[in-house]
Amino acid sequence: MNFRMIKYILGWILVFEALFLLVPLITALVFGEGCITSFLGTIALCLAAGGLLIFKKPENTRLYSREGFVIVSMSWIVLSLFGALPFVFSGAIPSYIDALFETVSGFTTTGASILPEVESLPKAMLMWRSFTHWVGGMGVLVFIMAFIPLSGGQNIHIMKAESPGPSVSKLVPKVKTTALILYSIYFVMTAVEFIMLLFGGMSVFDSLNTALATAGTGGFGIKNDSIGGFSPYIQIVVTVFMVLFSINFTSYYLILTGKLKEAFNKEVRVFLIIVAAAIAIITFDIRTLFPDLKEALRHSGFTVASIISTTGFATVDFNLWPELSKTVIVLLMFLGGCAGSTCGGIKITRIIILVKGLIKELEVMIHPRQLKKITVDSKPIEHEVVRSVNSYMVCYVLIFTASAAVLAIDEHDLITNFTAVSAAINNVGPGLELVGPTQNFSFFSPLSKAVLIFDMLAGRLELFPMLLLLSRATWRK
Amino acid sequence: MNFRMIKYILGWILVFEALFLLVPLITALVFGEGCITSFLGTIALCLAAGGLLIFKKPENTRLYSREGFVIVSMSWIVLSLFGALPFVFSGAIPSYIDALFETVSGFTTTGASILPEVESLPKAMLMWRSFTHWVGGMGVLVFIMAFIPLSGGQNIHIMKAESPGPSVSKLVPKVKTTALILYSIYFVMTAVEFIMLLFGGMSVFDSLNTALATAGTGGFGIKNDSIGGFSPYIQIVVTVFMVLFSINFTSYYLILTGKLKEAFNKEVRVFLIIVAAAIAIITFDIRTLFPDLKEALRHSGFTVASIISTTGFATVDFNLWPELSKTVIVLLMFLGGCAGSTCGGIKITRIIILVKGLIKELEVMIHPRQLKKITVDSKPIEHEVVRSVNSYMVCYVLIFTASAAVLAIDEHDLITNFTAVSAAINNVGPGLELVGPTQNFSFFSPLSKAVLIFDMLAGRLELFPMLLLLSRATWRK
Repeated sequence: MNFRMIKYILGWILVFEALFLLVPLITALVFGEGCITSFLGTIALCLAAGGLLIFKKPENTRLYSREGFVIVSMSWIVLSLFGALPFVFSGAIPSYIDALFETVSGFTTTGASILPEVESLPKAMLMWRSFTHWVGGMGVLVFIMAFIPLSGGQNIHIMKAESPGPSVSKLVPKVKTTALILYSIYFVMTAVEFIMLLFGGMSVFDSLNTALATAGTGGFGIKNDSIGGFSPYIQIVVTVFMVLFSINFTSYYLILTGKLKEAFNKEVRVFLIIVAAAIAIITFDIRTLFPDLKEALRHSGFTVASIISTTGFATVDFNLWPELSKTVIVLLMFLGGCAGSTCGGIKITRIIILVKGLIKELEVMIHPRQLKKITVDSKPIEHEVVRSVNSYMVCYVLIFTASAAVLAIDEHDLITNFTAVSAAINNVGPGLELVGPTQNFSFFSPLSKAVLIFDMLAGRLELFPMLLLLSRATWRK
Repeated sequence: MNFRMIKYILGWILVFEALFLLVPLITALVFGEGCITSFLGTIALCLAAGGLLIFKKPENTRLYSREGFVIVSMSWIVLSLFGALPFVFSGAIPSYIDALFETVSGFTTTGASILPEVESLPKAMLMWRSFTHWVGGMGVLVFIMAFIPLSGGQNIHIMKAESPGPSVSKLVPKVKTTALILYSIYFVMTAVEFIMLLFGGMSVFDSLNTALATAGTGGFGIKNDSIGGFSPYIQIVVTVFMVLFSINFTSYYLILTGKLKEAFNKEVRVFLIIVAAAIAIITFDIRTLFPDLKEALRHSGFTVASIISTTGFATVDFNLWPELSKTVIVLLMFLGGCAGSTCGGIKITRIIILVKGLIKELEVMIHPRQLKKITVDSKPIEHEVVRSVNSYMVCYVLIFTASAAVLAIDEHDLITNFTAVSAAINNVGPGLELVGPTQNFSFFSPLSKAVLIFDMLAGRLELFPMLLLLSRATWRK
């Protein structure tokens, strides 16, 4: 294990976190808020700790896959540990575990909050929450690795460990260039949403926050009723962008380079069909709750987009909807969007691989001599990918079950526990009952909060990096 | 596809069902009940249909694995379709779908009932319900195949498709002899429980029914309060036998042949540890609900044994227990006992293989050049078994999810739907809320009942045979 390199990269992470903290600092300056010192203090701590760690550049810069996993999980933990400090320093969230929950929820783009209301928070704090979504959405490591002065070659292990989905697709031969293209798409799409929200009469501050939280599919709101108080136009814009940010960013690159057919691959098509079907079912199920079908459709569309994209914004309290709608919502929580987007959840591509793998297995049972690889979009899927997706599912079920069992110690009802874990591990945000869209996560015991923090990180990093951090094999020589 | 052989074996299945029906017929005669004609009529129909099918023995008796799957699933369906008739003929259950639900629940050893109360039922009907558990518990096909006049060699495909667990272990080289040993153990253990219940002051009829339903880990009660009204002694005897019938019958053979160490293999040890831990947690959680710890321990022990063995008997209404206990109960529903027992559920051995597979996968991520097979009890597990267990899990999750989604159309609450599907697919019987131990399944729509019937059969036959029945590949030339 190359510990020097791990320390060195963690040092850079902290330096970049200091840079990220400039965004809320500037916000505090603009609005003349008193929490400036909280941000300045945190920036100073980040720079001091970071500076100490990057002081000496290691001679051996080689990274293998296990260093990749360790660096990714440690980076996210370190980012969150320091990122929580402004909340504590300013007194906005006095308890450190609560502040850590909020920050992890931010970076992992979960959007689950321990705050009973947000409108009394300083604007700089709101901006920091939204900005953590945006930073976490596309993954920080690959971004940062592009700037750290290192000779290349190490990045692929980091990218593999950090990017959502079962396999990494490089658009162009160089990892750095690929990262640059994807970040540009991310930036431009965020900017377009920001402008469209401005056109709807939203203030600059509200538009910026909403655009950042949508882009990361995060879901922290700046209003106590999330997006419920904004105009239908705003709600529709947010709906559309939640769907857009759920699609593999590679597809946008393919569209830009004229490869339309490749852009609308199997995963995107299945995703869009699921979205349409879910909207249809829920609209029908809630039709009598609203004055007309158009309004039912708007709220159904918003909720489906919010849940499947794992954003977690709300326009209405869907916890009060009929059971069929709630069932569809719970199922959508697990799906998530496409791989290579900013979504959480299991991802459509994994479901496709699992179903195709099962069909193949059934065929082999009938015709034992038949041996063929499964294909998606006419491309064969390697056995390693199928095996890794299977392991992911086993891992997912185990972490989910263990978490729900620990949460049960608090003696809250089954639906609360089940959907709280689902909301955390799938990075959705709200669940049902006590963690419904109008509620918050503050009532959980510190142990349950710690479990949910683990789940949010595990979910965002696709389980393995967090689990490997706890595995003996990782630390063995 | 050898259709003639399929028809021929289905014919024999019906002939044997006529024989099985002699048990309730004799009961009706002993108690002088009017439902004799219902049983006589059904026996006549079975013999007529069966006789027609076995009239001409096929020349080509070769069976391949796909015939094995089709025969197994079709046999269970045919058994249930005819087995439901006495309920309808006698008017005990006038609706055919309800009678079918009850019969499938019987043969699959689920024990979920659509009857609001059972004490008004004729004794012959109660006996038929209990007897279907006993017949279904060990699997009928392997038993029947031992008697059908055929040259050997076909049985292994049937045994593979019917026996619970990821792989079939033959105790002795011949399948027939293996089957004979296992059935003898089953018979003797049932007889011992029957005698021990008699010693507790239970009537002959009650003892016999309870022993049959315990042996099959079925759970149909003969009293409206299940086992709640019987003495602590009876409850403890049933508890012990529910645990005993959850252990791989091969272990008893190994004990009898002096191989104690092999008998207490990994699966059995893990199973017993889980039982002990679950009892401890629940006893602690419900300690204040009962006058003393001893009583809490008795009910906790009974409930844990009943749920993990997927029997489904109850001494108290555990739906009223605290949330932690209910969570443990829900988790136990999925586990089930050991492979090669009469239990439903996922089975402990699958969990062990999945966890070991995941650990190996994590190690491969860290040390990519390491390639080794996983081992259980120092025996390597073949890749095919690991792959098949993975497919089983995918299949399980898909069937579970789809079933819960269809049940949601009835607009009952999430816990009812979730635990109803769990109770059906894991062959447990009761769930929580509307399907709790004091409730029944009659309120579901016919569509939901049909789904649950499918789930019970799929669960009992370990998913693949039922799924293959619906697969195009099975019927392709």
